[in-house]
Amino acid sequence: MSNPKPSRYEDAGVSIDAGQQTVDLIKKAVQRTHGPNVLAGVGAFGGLFALDDLGPHPALVASTDGVGTKVALAAQRGRYRSIGHDLVNHCVNDILCAGADVKPLFFLDYVASGRLEPAHVAATVTGLAEACEAVGCALLGGETAEMPGVYQPGAFDLVGTIVGLVDHTRRYPFTSLSAGDVLLALPSSGPHTNGYSLIRKLVENVSLDEEIEGVGKLGEVVLEPHRCYLADLRKLATADVLVHSLAHITGGGLVDNLPRALPDGLSARIDTSSWTVPPLFRFLQQQGDIDTEEMFRVFNMGVGMIAVIPADACDAALVALSDSWLIGEVVEGDTLQWT
Amino acid sequence: MSNPKPSRYEDAGVSIDAGQQTVDLIKKAVQRTHGPNVLAGVGAFGGLFALDDLGPHPALVASTDGVGTKVALAAQRGRYRSIGHDLVNHCVNDILCAGADVKPLFFLDYVASGRLEPAHVAATVTGLAEACEAVGCALLGGETAEMPGVYQPGAFDLVGTIVGLVDHTRRYPFTSLSAGDVLLALPSSGPHTNGYSLIRKLVENVSLDEEIEGVGKLGEVVLEPHRCYLADLRKLATADVLVHSLAHITGGGLVDNLPRALPDGLSARIDTSSWTVPPLFRFLQQQGDIDTEEMFRVFNMGVGMIAVIPADACDAALVALSDSWLIGEVVEGDTLQWT
Repeated sequence: MSNPKPSRYEDAGVSIDAGQQTVDLIKKAVQRTHGPNVLAGVGAFGGLFALDDLGPHPALVASTDGVGTKVALAAQRGRYRSIGHDLVNHCVNDILCAGADVKPLFFLDYVASGRLEPAHVAATVTGLAEACEAVGCALLGGETAEMPGVYQPGAFDLVGTIVGLVDHTRRYPFTSLSAGDVLLALPSSGPHTNGYSLIRKLVENVSLDEEIEGVGKLGEVVLEPHRCYLADLRKLATADVLVHSLAHITGGGLVDNLPRALPDGLSARIDTSSWTVPPLFRFLQQQGDIDTEEMFRVFNMGVGMIAVIPADACDAALVALSDSWLIGEVVEGDTLQWT
Repeated sequence: MSNPKPSRYEDAGVSIDAGQQTVDLIKKAVQRTHGPNVLAGVGAFGGLFALDDLGPHPALVASTDGVGTKVALAAQRGRYRSIGHDLVNHCVNDILCAGADVKPLFFLDYVASGRLEPAHVAATVTGLAEACEAVGCALLGGETAEMPGVYQPGAFDLVGTIVGLVDHTRRYPFTSLSAGDVLLALPSSGPHTNGYSLIRKLVENVSLDEEIEGVGKLGEVVLEPHRCYLADLRKLATADVLVHSLAHITGGGLVDNLPRALPDGLSARIDTSSWTVPPLFRFLQQQGDIDTEEMFRVFNMGVGMIAVIPADACDAALVALSDSWLIGEVVEGDTLQWT
């Protein structure tokens, strides 16, 4: 009888007879993310992370997220490792928006399916660990759950929680944020982790193996992992660009997410001519005959993150981040303006 | 079109047209869990929790968990509020095992389904918030995800992450733990959150409305929420009982979990005559003709938590916790012994 209980990584291979190789693969990948702060990880009832170098006004910033139904496409295409990158990067981007110099501390994951395939779990966790390692974040714990009757055959879900450290006197939006600040757009790598229920409908009559002109191989393009913006923000800091606020453009698009980064009484004017919407979004729009307004509500349309910066820092920012562009500016009022 | 994106609490009602009443209900319940440490909660990209009173050797203890396929029974019986208690209590118990005086700080949740029912989400989150409030833990954030094609019709999953504070020089097991220490058993309230895939098979030909002699109404008994042991542990501390280690008896039962609480070279002798296995477990065993060894591997068999304490503290402990009992003692060796 298979173990009916959510099992730890170290059990996952055993309970479902995966063999020691899979377990070792996961363990090594996870342990590579463990610095000296990790006092207990795999096998403990709870992961233990020592707090030090806390600075003067320490606060924890935490976020739980999934990757939406991108998991369903990932399962269909066997892209387990890359969906691990998606989840970590999504979570990292979310906590970056809390304030200046957010430092990711640790991450915990949950992988569930009706029937766990050890190789898929191993690939997923390896991807999570790689993405954690890239941002100096410990993969502190996780749970795998076999849930017959809950998940569709072959389907799985993947949930992550990230905890980071921030100086709470440097929370976004800064009080120095004002009308006239400019909006620096950082490109997305694709739809990231939003709009996938719609994407799946739109492409259901197209082969994911198809090479779409100007778009690329559909299955590859739609599963491109969520880009992580931590390195970009560190480049801005190195270039002495003081970020006043950050908006992670997730579900709800620019319309819903940009206002979350701005104080009451201030809004933004977006220059829609400042960038070319990537071909995949245009292809998706045509597939469903969706109006542009709806597209901007569901998808990031090529904009993954917006940094609000002082106007006089714009040149330095554009040099520091060569793929960024000026997408608009902060204006008085409560209504998002489009030009 | 419904929002294809995992949405925040504040959006959940809106995107799926739940009406303001449901949203308000959730908000109030969540906000009741927020003390002065919570700097940003609902609506933020990430929840923000100020760290203070950290003590000399602060560490964070964190755990992610689900409630197994108890969610499927809960959905079948409409017990959304009580499954919220299950999840929080399970997570709290897990981090209690990290060391002495663990203080739960905050909790984040993830609720996903093929089609979100606002009333079910509201009830679930209300249950989570009630259980968080009971242990002084902030419900700092959460995510609701509508995942068509991933979940079975009517099914949902519920995942939680808890973060607590602990002095890492007071980690369990204490170095003072030694052979001759005694094992104090704290009763479970039922199967807690383990063994439910098996339970569901065992009861599939029995009406959950049936009143089983000596057991009670089956649907009620199997969905009894996971008991939280924080208050019990505080009572032990008040009675000056120094706990040397703690084992939360989850999946794998006593067999797998007790050794996790003991250092290498020490094991335990369990006195199986020290307690009467609750009637529900006997009923389940008979339903499936399962051998006793297997029962002890899958279920807690009435033992929810085991505290390892000095032998001379036994009397005080039994007085402080009137429903606890002496279940065995720590012995030399690596093999669990049963008498």
